[in-house]
Amino acid sequence: MPFLSRRAQLAPASPIRKLEPLARQAAERGLHIYHLNIGQPDVPTPAAFLRAATLPEGQVLAYSPSVGLYGFRRALAAHYSGSLGLPVTEEDVLVTTGGSEALLFAILSICDPGDEIITPEPFYPNYRMFAVMAGAEVRPLRTRIEEGFRLPPPAVFAEAVTPRTRAVLLCNPSNPTGAVYDPEALRAVVDLCRQRGLYLIADEVYREFIYGGLRPQSILAIPGATDVAIVVDSLSKRFSACGARVGCLVSRLRPVLEAATRFAMSRLSPPTLGQLGGMAVLQEAEAFIEPMIADFERRRNVLLEELRRLPGVLCPEPQGAFYLMARLPVDSSERFCQWLLTDFSLDGETVMLAPGPGFYATAGAGHDEVRIAYVLAEAPLRRAMHLLGHALGTYPGGTRG
Amino acid sequence: MPFLSRRAQLAPASPIRKLEPLARQAAERGLHIYHLNIGQPDVPTPAAFLRAATLPEGQVLAYSPSVGLYGFRRALAAHYSGSLGLPVTEEDVLVTTGGSEALLFAILSICDPGDEIITPEPFYPNYRMFAVMAGAEVRPLRTRIEEGFRLPPPAVFAEAVTPRTRAVLLCNPSNPTGAVYDPEALRAVVDLCRQRGLYLIADEVYREFIYGGLRPQSILAIPGATDVAIVVDSLSKRFSACGARVGCLVSRLRPVLEAATRFAMSRLSPPTLGQLGGMAVLQEAEAFIEPMIADFERRRNVLLEELRRLPGVLCPEPQGAFYLMARLPVDSSERFCQWLLTDFSLDGETVMLAPGPGFYATAGAGHDEVRIAYVLAEAPLRRAMHLLGHALGTYPGGTRG
Repeated sequence: MPFLSRRAQLAPASPIRKLEPLARQAAERGLHIYHLNIGQPDVPTPAAFLRAATLPEGQVLAYSPSVGLYGFRRALAAHYSGSLGLPVTEEDVLVTTGGSEALLFAILSICDPGDEIITPEPFYPNYRMFAVMAGAEVRPLRTRIEEGFRLPPPAVFAEAVTPRTRAVLLCNPSNPTGAVYDPEALRAVVDLCRQRGLYLIADEVYREFIYGGLRPQSILAIPGATDVAIVVDSLSKRFSACGARVGCLVSRLRPVLEAATRFAMSRLSPPTLGQLGGMAVLQEAEAFIEPMIADFERRRNVLLEELRRLPGVLCPEPQGAFYLMARLPVDSSERFCQWLLTDFSLDGETVMLAPGPGFYATAGAGHDEVRIAYVLAEAPLRRAMHLLGHALGTYPGGTRG
Repeated sequence: MPFLSRRAQLAPASPIRKLEPLARQAAERGLHIYHLNIGQPDVPTPAAFLRAATLPEGQVLAYSPSVGLYGFRRALAAHYSGSLGLPVTEEDVLVTTGGSEALLFAILSICDPGDEIITPEPFYPNYRMFAVMAGAEVRPLRTRIEEGFRLPPPAVFAEAVTPRTRAVLLCNPSNPTGAVYDPEALRAVVDLCRQRGLYLIADEVYREFIYGGLRPQSILAIPGATDVAIVVDSLSKRFSACGARVGCLVSRLRPVLEAATRFAMSRLSPPTLGQLGGMAVLQEAEAFIEPMIADFERRRNVLLEELRRLPGVLCPEPQGAFYLMARLPVDSSERFCQWLLTDFSLDGETVMLAPGPGFYATAGAGHDEVRIAYVLAEAPLRRAMHLLGHALGTYPGGTRG
């Protein structure tokens, strides 16, 4: 005693959050830290959300139905079928405790221990955790910084399919790379899934975070996709309400949604207050989202401009989400990101980034890459890049000679 | 397509919630339904909770740390170590999304597929779901209505242990029976767990719901229990905040808490608003809880008085929680509970109960039992029992001749 399950031993600490203790120590030493390591935007939550996410005194903060408040489910279905023009009714929607739970329920519903999920790498590290919780495995398909992290050609997907493959998992726009996948490439993945009897889990929590005049696209708009697609969505980023813990699973595949609903019954209810907020804000979604996206596009441009000034830094232009992966002239991004918190400071400030290897399943991959979340306003973002430039100049493990 | 995982096929619909569609139809026919089928009390949530579970306009509803807001975790530790006198520090507490998630994380941390958990039956049906999600199995130990659902003797526990047994799971006070376990019997289970290298998962979400002058007890107060105990707790019932989805896992077993924390990192954060509410209300816990418990005790007495008037009904006196199991003079409690919603009404009203078999793993067990949640005030409770009496008199499958 105490013994742990095999899955508990396999479960890695989140690579995004594991530097937290060093950051706390740095903060206790009085250092100001620019947090570019985590997808927590600084955008104020819509007032309509906060006003609605409450109950008057004397009322009971009760469970919602396991599938979500009926009114909220209807509002979500109207959002998908209305502004996005997708073939979605309220029976196709299961409200979940954040997009995280939607991913977990999807994987639990379709994967047995030993089953496999194909996903491009680098990928959101928690995919691996949800797979571990289900006893399943993530099979990474390498994408490369030099190629803008674009999807591999269809033949590469097809070769990765084994008898244990159950699904392809795509995050579009991508966390961590910011890549937005080409509709042609998506169509090829849909076709592969249909031909080989695989599900396509589409993580679309950043769907509206898309730049350069591109328009939000859902996998559900691709012909035939409804036969294979399980969409994961969340209010967290779209309405800057990460702490509300409200997301959903959307699929026309009734048996999958029914299975996920049985798992949902076991946890009784998603958070009620967050659903009340979500219901209110869905009605004015565009009014909130459009200026926010314009703002993120400006931040992206600022970040790119500043990064490209730094010698030895490689960074493809991200087209969506609010992350990018950059290659830095360092021996090890793990060591460099730690060093930023333990040994570096400039005028009492430092910057926190997420080391690249945590986003790869392939050993050694991403060893000189970092993920940067542009979740700060322009001035602090420029300042953070100024700090990064100084740090790269003084870091003892620099590789620019 | 679509295939489902084996666990999805094993996952039963919640026996407590599966009559919901019939209830909706009954309500649509204009029937008033007394809901005694689910543990959703009618008690107004404390005003201090609702006032604190909000953010002012202009702020960001952000993720909390994965382990919970630091202030809330400290407040929880103070609650356990202060008013309950338990050996708990903030490092022993992991904030979870309701007690449900605490149970899931505990089981995921200690059980591999094929492992077993021993629990007295009847038991809270979602235990089976969390086990299914981890690939584990629940081994029920029968307890009996004629014996007041008291714990089996130590020898029965000992005989049930196999090489695959990982834990004993106790709900005390018990949902669904209302039994409060004898400290001697609990000590024997603690000793067994210590001797056989098992964990003791203690679901204490009803800890304060205890009547007849008994005092709340935690397993952690039993000598030696800290070596084996994983406590599951929740704000839901204690502060009538079921929809907040805030609970916690409490254990001195650091490796278990660390494993659970890694699972917790994958879902990023428990709901932030519910934690803000919980932090406020913990400071005035007793002022809210004491009158509520007195009220539940009166309800329990009313329910017992009314039930015992009904011919052919057997019902031991529950000493805790807000449930009881009753034996009814019917051929099948499943059929009877359905019939209440589809065929019975008196002056436009009916009553909804949870059929017994869903609380048993043993086939056929509980076939004439129901769980009644006394979550309504005295007058509607009496009225509901009046309806039940009429229903038992006219139900075609009655067994009193």
